[in-house]
Amino acid sequence: MMPYPTLADIQAAAARIKPYAHRTPVLTCTSLNRLVGAELFCKCENFQKVGAFKFRGACNAVFSLSEPEAQHGVATHSSGNHAAAVALAAQLRGIKAHIVMPDNAPAVKKAAVAGYGGTIVYCAPTLAAREATLERVVHETGATFIHPYNDARVIAGQGTAALEILTDVPDLDVLMAPVGGGGLLSGTALATTALAPATQVIAAEPEAADDAYRSLHEGRIIPALDPRTIADGLRTSLGELTFAIIQRHVHQIVTVSEAAIISAMRHVWERMKIVIEPSAAVPIGALLERKSDLTGKRIGVILSGGNVDLDRLPWLS
Amino acid sequence: MMPYPTLADIQAAAARIKPYAHRTPVLTCTSLNRLVGAELFCKCENFQKVGAFKFRGACNAVFSLSEPEAQHGVATHSSGNHAAAVALAAQLRGIKAHIVMPDNAPAVKKAAVAGYGGTIVYCAPTLAAREATLERVVHETGATFIHPYNDARVIAGQGTAALEILTDVPDLDVLMAPVGGGGLLSGTALATTALAPATQVIAAEPEAADDAYRSLHEGRIIPALDPRTIADGLRTSLGELTFAIIQRHVHQIVTVSEAAIISAMRHVWERMKIVIEPSAAVPIGALLERKSDLTGKRIGVILSGGNVDLDRLPWLS
Repeated sequence: MMPYPTLADIQAAAARIKPYAHRTPVLTCTSLNRLVGAELFCKCENFQKVGAFKFRGACNAVFSLSEPEAQHGVATHSSGNHAAAVALAAQLRGIKAHIVMPDNAPAVKKAAVAGYGGTIVYCAPTLAAREATLERVVHETGATFIHPYNDARVIAGQGTAALEILTDVPDLDVLMAPVGGGGLLSGTALATTALAPATQVIAAEPEAADDAYRSLHEGRIIPALDPRTIADGLRTSLGELTFAIIQRHVHQIVTVSEAAIISAMRHVWERMKIVIEPSAAVPIGALLERKSDLTGKRIGVILSGGNVDLDRLPWLS
Repeated sequence: MMPYPTLADIQAAAARIKPYAHRTPVLTCTSLNRLVGAELFCKCENFQKVGAFKFRGACNAVFSLSEPEAQHGVATHSSGNHAAAVALAAQLRGIKAHIVMPDNAPAVKKAAVAGYGGTIVYCAPTLAAREATLERVVHETGATFIHPYNDARVIAGQGTAALEILTDVPDLDVLMAPVGGGGLLSGTALATTALAPATQVIAAEPEAADDAYRSLHEGRIIPALDPRTIADGLRTSLGELTFAIIQRHVHQIVTVSEAAIISAMRHVWERMKIVIEPSAAVPIGALLERKSDLTGKRIGVILSGGNVDLDRLPWLS
């Protein structure tokens, strides 16, 4: 297994992506605080480039490549935000991006990849089809594969969001992030352990895709088998690297019902006046359901993204 | 006619409301800039208390009252945001607010008024019914009437949003605001004339409620007669005071189609990841329709509010 990223790697990532990524704001909301009974500080990665934290990791990975590596371009498979992130990062570096996407990906995410100049290679919506297609693309082009989460450069990039909120808001009792493949969570946990060891890292996961929760409890990676959750960014399984980091540095994983995810998403839109995607609403859903006793605590929440198909809102279907 | 508010009045309002109001952020968005061909700086009054700029004016008016006046409470009629704003300002001062509302006001706005402790008095959805009901309430309670816009204290309060964006973003070529009753526009124009006389003030108004546009061209107040626009905050007519200020200090009023308002609203949600109401989308709609040649300009836009019924989105009906 490749080594963990260190705090120095996360700090180097922060410097590397600085010319390209937004330093996103931290927003607070009195009425949301009242609703969950705690003091929330929301790190708005929905305002990040491509509309999601994924740009941090992809940008760090793409700009970490040597010149000869970069010449052959990059490739990845992704259900959406990582795809757009790799496409934009490659465009910024002036190299090719080959994106393997399931043909049932949301229209808004396909359009984003195409808009950033990425070459889309469609495949069936299964992990096996994605991997086979990716392998073919890499073989044919010599592109460097940038894994969506099980990659030290990607994890270091994702950790820069935690670096920023821990700098902007001192004395957090808790820092929460959603968990899918675990890239954001791993980076968040590493940055927090190093910079704010008294701050607990709590992950939130859909009940309907609780593979990370079960993996942590059973001490081995339990793959997600065709999970049916509205949180489309969190349907993936952990990787070896992210699992190892999460086992060591994450205090708790809590699971959240689909109803709470939808309710949290709607509350954030209605009260905070910002657009977040279902995956980003999962930690807020955990707070609404009081899945952990966090009453009165100072809680940082990484709102992971804001890419939603505005024609298909979950509370209207 | 009462005297115009001066720059000193606007500055006094800023100091008066500072403990209660948010200093809202100014957001930028590369893809929106590309879409309209100009450089936009969006003043996010959708993040303001009660979700709209209206809190600034209401708060200034409520906290301007003498103690004996305040004892009898305040009263107003409003289609929505001003109602919630007066209710919250009164609650913060610890006095009563009597709010005359049309019985067809959006559910989300009724709930907001009630949530801030305002006493709602329902009336038929006509100007005559509102005024008669308000007169009765004022007669019965001795409350001070706080007009939604034709009031120097309210106008001075609304002008504080311009004060902030002109401080935060120097050298704007243009500052845009929507126009309904003209409170926001008047305050914006007075602040801009005083602080940044080289910055043009351009108002945007729905074509379907173009009474301010016609008033400016005909040199007299043309009342809005039951206008049918989705921009529910802009259905009111100008007042004597706001009309006089607008005549003198506003460079241009441009009108915007309903389709462009809806398209602008959707674009802002999709690209900026923030929730704005139809009224707030009107200036962006004007830019999308290229109603004035503003290519390449630095344009401040006051995004007036974010109170939307999430069950009834215009692009889904």
